[in-house]
Amino acid sequence: MPGKFTRFETHDVRFPTSLTGDGTDAMNTDCDYSAAYVVLYTDYDLVGHGMTFTIGRGTEIVCHAIQVLAKRLIGRDPEEFFANMGQAWDWMSGDSQLRWIGPEKGIIHLALAAVNNAVWDMFAKSRKKPLWKLIVDMTPEELVNATAFRYITDALTREEALAMLKAKEGGKREREAYVKEVGYPAYITSAGWLGYSDDKVAHLTKEAVQAGWTHFKMKVGASLEDDLRRGKLIRSIIDDPKNYPAGKPLPDPNSPELKGRNAGPTGAVLMIDANQVWDVEEAIRYVKALEEIRPWFIEEPTAPDDILGHAAIRKALAPYGIGVATGEHALNRMTFKQLFQAEAVDIAQIDACRLGGVSEVLGVLLMAAKFGVLVCPHAGGVGLCEHVIHLSLIDYIAISGSMERNVIEYSSHLHEHFVYPCSINGKGRYVVPENENGGYSTEMHPQSIAEYEFPGRG
Amino acid sequence: MPGKFTRFETHDVRFPTSLTGDGTDAMNTDCDYSAAYVVLYTDYDLVGHGMTFTIGRGTEIVCHAIQVLAKRLIGRDPEEFFANMGQAWDWMSGDSQLRWIGPEKGIIHLALAAVNNAVWDMFAKSRKKPLWKLIVDMTPEELVNATAFRYITDALTREEALAMLKAKEGGKREREAYVKEVGYPAYITSAGWLGYSDDKVAHLTKEAVQAGWTHFKMKVGASLEDDLRRGKLIRSIIDDPKNYPAGKPLPDPNSPELKGRNAGPTGAVLMIDANQVWDVEEAIRYVKALEEIRPWFIEEPTAPDDILGHAAIRKALAPYGIGVATGEHALNRMTFKQLFQAEAVDIAQIDACRLGGVSEVLGVLLMAAKFGVLVCPHAGGVGLCEHVIHLSLIDYIAISGSMERNVIEYSSHLHEHFVYPCSINGKGRYVVPENENGGYSTEMHPQSIAEYEFPGRG
Repeated sequence: MPGKFTRFETHDVRFPTSLTGDGTDAMNTDCDYSAAYVVLYTDYDLVGHGMTFTIGRGTEIVCHAIQVLAKRLIGRDPEEFFANMGQAWDWMSGDSQLRWIGPEKGIIHLALAAVNNAVWDMFAKSRKKPLWKLIVDMTPEELVNATAFRYITDALTREEALAMLKAKEGGKREREAYVKEVGYPAYITSAGWLGYSDDKVAHLTKEAVQAGWTHFKMKVGASLEDDLRRGKLIRSIIDDPKNYPAGKPLPDPNSPELKGRNAGPTGAVLMIDANQVWDVEEAIRYVKALEEIRPWFIEEPTAPDDILGHAAIRKALAPYGIGVATGEHALNRMTFKQLFQAEAVDIAQIDACRLGGVSEVLGVLLMAAKFGVLVCPHAGGVGLCEHVIHLSLIDYIAISGSMERNVIEYSSHLHEHFVYPCSINGKGRYVVPENENGGYSTEMHPQSIAEYEFPGRG
Repeated sequence: MPGKFTRFETHDVRFPTSLTGDGTDAMNTDCDYSAAYVVLYTDYDLVGHGMTFTIGRGTEIVCHAIQVLAKRLIGRDPEEFFANMGQAWDWMSGDSQLRWIGPEKGIIHLALAAVNNAVWDMFAKSRKKPLWKLIVDMTPEELVNATAFRYITDALTREEALAMLKAKEGGKREREAYVKEVGYPAYITSAGWLGYSDDKVAHLTKEAVQAGWTHFKMKVGASLEDDLRRGKLIRSIIDDPKNYPAGKPLPDPNSPELKGRNAGPTGAVLMIDANQVWDVEEAIRYVKALEEIRPWFIEEPTAPDDILGHAAIRKALAPYGIGVATGEHALNRMTFKQLFQAEAVDIAQIDACRLGGVSEVLGVLLMAAKFGVLVCPHAGGVGLCEHVIHLSLIDYIAISGSMERNVIEYSSHLHEHFVYPCSINGKGRYVVPENENGGYSTEMHPQSIAEYEFPGRG
């Protein structure tokens, strides 16, 4: 007798991070890092946890949308889904009436991400594998079947994807062993929030340098003068060999991994992030004026929907050696497709919970590999770091086959609320998650949910 | 003492249109035309009505989002909003936490449309003018101030917009008088739904020809064979002079208004609409195979977010004399901006309730005029026809200054539920709305709301 999805519950979980200035940037002046969280139950011993990341008000609307989507699963057999997760994704995103209020974007898509990720979490748990391992162990055919392909076949056909995956199959075992040994490269945003004082920034930057970090991100866009001052402050710390742990070799700024990143003499790389505050012309003017602090890239210079705007900005900044990154607000795989087609970005910053779950992420990873664009996932917030290490491992082991030029965002907040928190090794790299019960590392501690449920006891 | 917004109510109103096959197309196989409806109250004698159009399930989530947005207005002075509706729009769309779950797209943007349109309705009522008249009577400076400009200034600056409006100022009075006399051109979709039998299509098409219509739209995409058969059936009726009212002159297929529209010998124009069912390459193949029925344009050939996909389709179909139209699902003004910049469309089909209300629509109308793209608003559904005649009048009288090459969609459903229903004159053109109480024609009869409230008595 096959099993069934029997019920689900949602939770609106909000952490009061706005009280400390964590997470402040030029667009988001007060963030309460939050999760619209879902637990899917079956009539047998299998549970799936999923979430999407939000920043406070409105989380209750996303929970409402999750309820409407999750209700459709009740009575269906999970194994039917697991057998073809691409088809399952088409069905989950394809309710014709609910499609109208997206389609495939905004709240209904954030909700889809939570539900689709919960089904993937469940799938991985049922096979007692971490999500990344479940997927890298798939055959190329299985992986292609698990991918959302609708509307991207002009950029990448199933046949091309299959050929790409087959070409990488031979090296999978070796890459898996290697990344387990060294960890996956990361960078840190925790130091550079707009809400912090210069003293706090200097202090946190020194700490980060000591902890082994080599890539540092700073928020910009509220005041050019402040940004320049703060950028020079950070540069003065990260470019000074005296601030680094004694006796430890520094990365070579001319190495292939750091090529084109405006790395300082210590190999340190600085990135800047404007969180969509500018119009296109304004972005170009402002970032040119920050040339002196030598950023690797400007992240989210303008509206996340503006593919041609990003292409114009990238073209204008190329002579200054400054790249363009975006993607944490890219609405779906069609936006990434066009960012690649228009050569609008140097770095694709996929978001595990804004793209509609793992199946859509796979489509973007495959396109990025074909177009040769770096994938540096958006993380931080709450729960995002836990998700994205899985995605980058899939990318490295099974899809692109390369890792050293990518870096995953990391911030040190709120990991304590997860049953399988991500962790960073002494070299500033993500540790490969190996939780023995399997899954997508998305499960929160029940006491964290209870404490921070909104409106509630928190 | 200034007045205040004091409270609001929302209604989830659903009409059971799926029972009759009205509104069926290749993507939307069962539509219950619905409205997420809002009424804003003040502490004086002024009420605003707004809505967004949905097709059934999920309307309750949009109502939830409307509540969250409308709550922000309570205690504010409506006249403060009216004094600068562009600034009001920035504020209404700019809550930093709610922005995260869009931004400016999907459910939160549909909700913004309802609330912004309700404020515009209230503004027009306070001045005892129909909305179109309120806006065409604005000075160019006032109109620019009422417009949402963020993220579009690389395509159109405020200064350019001002110059464009000033250049059209002289002819406003004359154009207003002319359109009142002749009405605004329209086309009909009521005949060509996929859910209808050939007999019903033939019957409705003959009726439409008799009623004076000259542009006809047919839904395609479920079966090429059926589409060809049905297209030829419609063509055989609309191209046959014998089916037209005796003694009435037929439009000249070679007139400037019909140039490039593949008009038949009677001046009749056929359009086809795929409602996003195809990938890009598939769209090109399929529509080429429909060359024989000589459509003016293919509407929504692929994902509405795919600007570059539409550009590729347009380029491929140009040798066949078939244009591209899209916009009813375009997420915001940034999508229209790029559709214009990429020369991806011949016709922009703005939607009064998917764009975030009148202020954003004004931005799109201004860009369309600058880029010389026709604006043929999306209508049908419920309430959309009531809205869009206002927008097209603003476009004609104050912005583009031209009308005869545009056509507004019309369908005959559900107008009886509105206090100021739109109407069509004997020449198949919209009548200029002149309701003496002013407003945006968005007010529904209380008994209609009561009867079709969901879940409810309906």
